[in-house]
Amino acid sequence: MKHDKDEKAIVLAWFGATYPKALAGITAMQREVREAFPETRVEVALTSNMIRRIWQGRRGDKDYLAKHKGVPAGVLYAKGPLAAIADLQDEGYRTIIVQPTFIYGGEEFADLASYIRGLDSIETVKPRNRPFKKLLLGRPLLGMPGPRHDYRQDMAAAAAALGADVELAGKDHAALVYMGHGNKFHSTGAYIEFQQVMREMYPETPIFIGTVEGFPSLDYVLSAILHVRVKKVLLKPLMMVAAEHAGHDMAGDQDDSWKSVLSSQGIEVRCMMQGLGEKPEIRDIFIRHLRDTAGDNHITLPDRRRE
Amino acid sequence: MKHDKDEKAIVLAWFGATYPKALAGITAMQREVREAFPETRVEVALTSNMIRRIWQGRRGDKDYLAKHKGVPAGVLYAKGPLAAIADLQDEGYRTIIVQPTFIYGGEEFADLASYIRGLDSIETVKPRNRPFKKLLLGRPLLGMPGPRHDYRQDMAAAAAALGADVELAGKDHAALVYMGHGNKFHSTGAYIEFQQVMREMYPETPIFIGTVEGFPSLDYVLSAILHVRVKKVLLKPLMMVAAEHAGHDMAGDQDDSWKSVLSSQGIEVRCMMQGLGEKPEIRDIFIRHLRDTAGDNHITLPDRRRE
Amino acid sequence: MKHDKDEKAIVLAWFGATYPKALAGITAMQREVREAFPETRVEVALTSNMIRRIWQGRRGDKDYLAKHKGVPAGVLYAKGPLAAIADLQDEGYRTIIVQPTFIYGGEEFADLASYIRGLDSIETVKPRNRPFKKLLLGRPLLGMPGPRHDYRQDMAAAAAALGADVELAGKDHAALVYMGHGNKFHSTGAYIEFQQVMREMYPETPIFIGTVEGFPSLDYVLSAILHVRVKKVLLKPLMMVAAEHAGHDMAGDQDDSWKSVLSSQGIEVRCMMQGLGEKPEIRDIFIRHLRDTAGDNHITLPDRRRE
Amino acid sequence: MKHDKDEKAIVLAWFGATYPKALAGITAMQREVREAFPETRVEVALTSNMIRRIWQGRRGDKDYLAKHKGVPAGVLYAKGPLAAIADLQDEGYRTIIVQPTFIYGGEEFADLASYIRGLDSIETVKPRNRPFKKLLLGRPLLGMPGPRHDYRQDMAAAAAALGADVELAGKDHAALVYMGHGNKFHSTGAYIEFQQVMREMYPETPIFIGTVEGFPSLDYVLSAILHVRVKKVLLKPLMMVAAEHAGHDMAGDQDDSWKSVLSSQGIEVRCMMQGLGEKPEIRDIFIRHLRDTAGDNHITLPDRRRE
Repeated sequence: MKHDKDEKAIVLAWFGATYPKALAGITAMQREVREAFPETRVEVALTSNMIRRIWQGRRGDKDYLAKHKGVPAGVLYAKGPLAAIADLQDEGYRTIIVQPTFIYGGEEFADLASYIRGLDSIETVKPRNRPFKKLLLGRPLLGMPGPRHDYRQDMAAAAAALGADVELAGKDHAALVYMGHGNKFHSTGAYIEFQQVMREMYPETPIFIGTVEGFPSLDYVLSAILHVRVKKVLLKPLMMVAAEHAGHDMAGDQDDSWKSVLSSQGIEVRCMMQGLGEKPEIRDIFIRHLRDTAGDNHITLPDRRRE
Repeated sequence: MKHDKDEKAIVLAWFGATYPKALAGITAMQREVREAFPETRVEVALTSNMIRRIWQGRRGDKDYLAKHKGVPAGVLYAKGPLAAIADLQDEGYRTIIVQPTFIYGGEEFADLASYIRGLDSIETVKPRNRPFKKLLLGRPLLGMPGPRHDYRQDMAAAAAALGADVELAGKDHAALVYMGHGNKFHSTGAYIEFQQVMREMYPETPIFIGTVEGFPSLDYVLSAILHVRVKKVLLKPLMMVAAEHAGHDMAGDQDDSWKSVLSSQGIEVRCMMQGLGEKPEIRDIFIRHLRDTAGDNHITLPDRRRE
Repeated sequence: MKHDKDEKAIVLAWFGATYPKALAGITAMQREVREAFPETRVEVALTSNMIRRIWQGRRGDKDYLAKHKGVPAGVLYAKGPLAAIADLQDEGYRTIIVQPTFIYGGEEFADLASYIRGLDSIETVKPRNRPFKKLLLGRPLLGMPGPRHDYRQDMAAAAAALGADVELAGKDHAALVYMGHGNKFHSTGAYIEFQQVMREMYPETPIFIGTVEGFPSLDYVLSAILHVRVKKVLLKPLMMVAAEHAGHDMAGDQDDSWKSVLSSQGIEVRCMMQGLGEKPEIRDIFIRHLRDTAGDNHITLPDRRRE
Repeated sequence: MKHDKDEKAIVLAWFGATYPKALAGITAMQREVREAFPETRVEVALTSNMIRRIWQGRRGDKDYLAKHKGVPAGVLYAKGPLAAIADLQDEGYRTIIVQPTFIYGGEEFADLASYIRGLDSIETVKPRNRPFKKLLLGRPLLGMPGPRHDYRQDMAAAAAALGADVELAGKDHAALVYMGHGNKFHSTGAYIEFQQVMREMYPETPIFIGTVEGFPSLDYVLSAILHVRVKKVLLKPLMMVAAEHAGHDMAGDQDDSWKSVLSSQGIEVRCMMQGLGEKPEIRDIFIRHLRDTAGDNHITLPDRRRE
C-alpha cells in the first residue's frame, strides 16, 4: 500500500492571480521544481479564496475557456492549501512540504502557518495512523522569523536576484521604483528593510519601495523621490505576479495609479509588467528554500543535482 | 461568492468495507440523510486507510468494475475524512457536520475527533478567512463521553432499534449472539454495558455480545452460553456493515470462526449477514444524532419534516 | 542558570480527598517516588477543583488546623495540575512527567491529557525558549488506550497486586465486592473487564465490582451476588483513597449505602476502609508506570535501583 | 466556591529588568491598573527567563536585599506568564486578561500569544471544568496584526503620548533619537513606520529611531543624522524600562555606545534614562488596550470611571 511507502509531495502555495498572462511564473516554477525533484509530486495551491472562486467559475465557462486556451490546468483546477494538502494525504503522501511563494512573512504566511500547525496537531491512538509523517512549511522570499535561517541573508539573496532590474534602470539613468502589495493590518517594515538592503547593494541607482496598502504609501514614496529630484523611473511590481494590482494600481491610466501620479509630477515613467515569479533567479531562491526545509528536517528529496 | 453564503454540508464517516454487497447500508444512509436535509450537501468518507487504498486500486481496474457494476460511486471514489472535509471547504462549505457511523466512542472516534480538533484550531489574521465557521462531530451509535447527551439513553435507543433481531431469535427459541469488532488497545466495556441494556429491555431472550478483538472474547461468550445451556443461537454482526469480519470471523467455514466454534459445542447456529447499517431504525438514530449536533450548535439544516 | 540545566520533575496527580485519614496513601506514594528517584523533584497535585477549594479554605482555618495536626503540607498546599506544572516550569524544571493515580482512562484522565496537550503545544520563535523540553503523561492503574503498553497486562498487574484482598475474603469464605467510582458520562466497561481479569486470576473466590455512578450499579451487583447465593462479603473501595465515597456510599449507616442494602438481603457484610493507594503493591505499579514513561521518552531519571 | 463565581484577573506581562531603579514604571502601572479596575486582581509577570532567574537568585540574597530595600515584592517574586496565569486559575480566577507591555508585536508577543493559545485549547469532558472561561491577550503599544484595532491608530496614540520628549528636544534645538531593542530574527519595520508617524506628527523636530539589534542599526541612524547635519541630540530609550540596554548600549562610556559613537562625530549628546513605562500617558494607553480587550470580549471589569 502507498500508505506505507512514505511518498513525498511538494505544494507550491501562491496567493494567485486571475490574469491568464500573469500565470507564466506559476507554471514555470511548478515545472522547475518538478525538474529539480523529479521523484516528488509537485502541486500548486492558491491561497486567495476570492481568486479560487473566480477560477472555479471559469472551469465551466465555455466562452471563457474558448478564448483563453492556454490557461494551465494546474491553475484552472487549483485548490486551496487545505484541500491540496488533504488530497495528497488521501492518495498516500504523508511527507509534504508546503512552499509559499509569498514575499515576506505577513498575513498570508501567518494564515498558512496556522493551517500547517492545525493539521500537524492531529494525533491518532496508533501513531502509525497519523495523517502526516512530516508536514512542513518553507519560508517566504524575504525570510521568516526565527533563528534557523537569518532573514537578512534571505533579503541579500533576493536583492542579488534583482540585479537585472537595477541594471535596466541604471542604463536608462532612471530610479527603480517597486510597488509591493503591503497590507493595512500590520506593519510592512520588511519592505523598508529590503529597500535598505538593495540601496546598500546597489548604491549607484536610487531605489524606492512602496506598497498599495499600508506603509510606505505612494505619497511617502513620491515625497522621497521628489526630495532627491529624480526625473525618470522604472516602475515594477514587487509581487510574484504582474496581475490586477500591477495592471491597475501601478500602470493603470486612471488618475490615481502610480504611473499617473508620478507622471503628473513631471517624472518620466516606464512601467514594466513582470512578476517576480517570472524571474528564474527568484524561482531558484524558492527552490533553495525548499531544499533547506527538507534538509533541516532530515527529508531526502531525490534531487537532479545529485544524479 | 459561495464563500460568503455559509453553505452547509454533512460528511458521513464510515470505517468502510471492501465487499460490494456490504455497501447497501452506506448507500441507503446517504440517500436518507439527503432526503432528511434536502438543501444540505451530503458526502461519504471512509476512515480506514487500508480499505480506501483497496477502492483506489479498483477505480482503475477494468475487470473488477465490469464484474461489479453496482458499486456506488460514493464509495468507489470515497475520500478519507480529511480530504472529504477539505474538498467541501474548498468548494465554499464552511459549516460542516461530520457524523460518524461508529458503534461507540473507541479508537476510530478518538482519531476522528482529533482530526476535527486540529482542523478547527486553524485561525486566520482576519476572522472572516477562517476555513470553517463551524466544524462539528456527531456522536456514535452508543453515545459518547460528556454531559450533553446521556450515553445511556443512546444505548436504550440502539437497543430499541434492535427489537427485530430479538424477535427473530425468540421465534426460533434461539439465543441472540452479536459479534462486535472490539479492539486490543483499550477497554471495550461499552459492549458489556450495551449487552446489559439489551438484557434488561428484552428479558425473555438470552443475549450475548462478544468481540473479534479484545474483551469479551469468543471464549468468554462461549462459556457464558454454555453456562445457561443454550442449544440454538442466531449469530449476527454488531457492526455497521456485514463484510470481511462477518463473512470470515463470524460465519466462515474455517475451524476458528464463531460459527464453527459454537457448532463444535453442539449448538445450532444460524448466521445472518446483515450489518446494522442495513436497518432503517439504526440509520434513523444517526439522523437524530445529526439533528442533535446541528441543534446543539444553533445550525439550521433545512429539514424535510419542517416543510 | 537553572533554565539551561534541564531539571526534571514528577507531578503525582491525585483526584484528592478531604478526609485527613484518607491521605496516607498520597503521602506514602510521594515519599516512595522520592526514594525511587532521589534526584528528581516530586510534587503532588489535586485534580478535583472542589476538593482543592476545601483545602484552600482550611489553610487559614486555625481551628481546623489545630484539630488536624497531621495534615501533610503536600496536600494542604496542593495545587491543581496546571499550577503545579507551571510553578515547576517557573523554577526551571523543563522535563516533567505527570503521573496520574487514576484507576483507568476515564474523564479525569481525558481532562488531564488535554491539559498536557495544550501546554505541550506552546511554541516559541526561538526553540530554546519553549517552556518544556518534554512534558509527559503516565498511564493510569488499569492502562490507557494505545499500542505502546497493553492495557490487559496493566490489568493483570493490578489484579496481582490485589491478591491480599482476595486472600482475606477467601479465609473468611466471603465474596470480595469492590465499589469503584464510575461515572455517568461514558461507559465504565474497564471495571467489568477488570472484574473478569480478577475472576480468571482468582477462580476460587467470587469477585464483584460495581460503581457508585453508572454501570455496573449496586442493583446489578446485588442481583449477581444473589444469583450465586453469596452469604458473606468483604466490601472494599476500588478507589485510590478511602474517603467520602467509602465512608458514606459504601459503609454509611443510611438505608441506601452498599453495606445497608447488602445487609438488608441477609448478607453478612464486612467493610474495610482502605484505599488502593495504601497498598505498597499498587504504589509500585505507578512507580513502574513512571519508569516506563521516562524510558519510552528517553528520559534518564537517576534511579536508586541503579546505584 | 470561588470556582463558580467567575473571578476576573489581569496579568501585566513585562519583559522585565534587573536594575532596581528601572522598576518604577512596572510598579506605577500595577498601581494604576488596580485603581482603574478596583475589583479585579492585578498581577505582574516577567517574560524573560533570564531576568526571572536573576530575581529568583536575589530573593534569598540577604546582602542584595539589605542594599536594595525598595525592590517591590511584585517584581522580586514575579513569576513567568505561565505560572502567573496558572496560579490565578488555581485560586479560582477563570477570566484572565494578559496585557503585555511590549512595544510591538514581535518575538515576545508571538511567544506570549502561543502560551495563551495553548492554555486556551485545554478542553474538558464537562465544559464547566474548563480551566478558563476566557483567557485573552491585549495588544502591545504599537498595535498588533488583525482587523479589529487599526495598528496605525495605535501608533498615532503612542506618538501623541511622546509629545513631551519632542518638546524637550525642540526647546534644546536638538534632534530626538530613540534607541529601541529590535531583534535579529525578523524585520523590525514597526520602528521605521512609527518613526514616520512621529515625523508627520512633529514635523518641526528631526526624529530618528534605531535599534540595538537588527534594523535600523546605529550605523544607519548615524548616517541619516549626519545627512541632515544635526549637531545636538536628545537620546532616549524606546523601551518600557531604562535598564541594562539604556545604561550600557545607549549611555555607556565604552567606545561603542550610542552616546560615544554620536559624540565621536562631533554631535552633542544628552542622554535621558527614562523608560516609556515611566510616562503616565504611555501607561494610559495600555489601560485603554486592556479596556478594549475586555469590551471586545464582553467582559465587564468594574471600572472606577463608571462609578
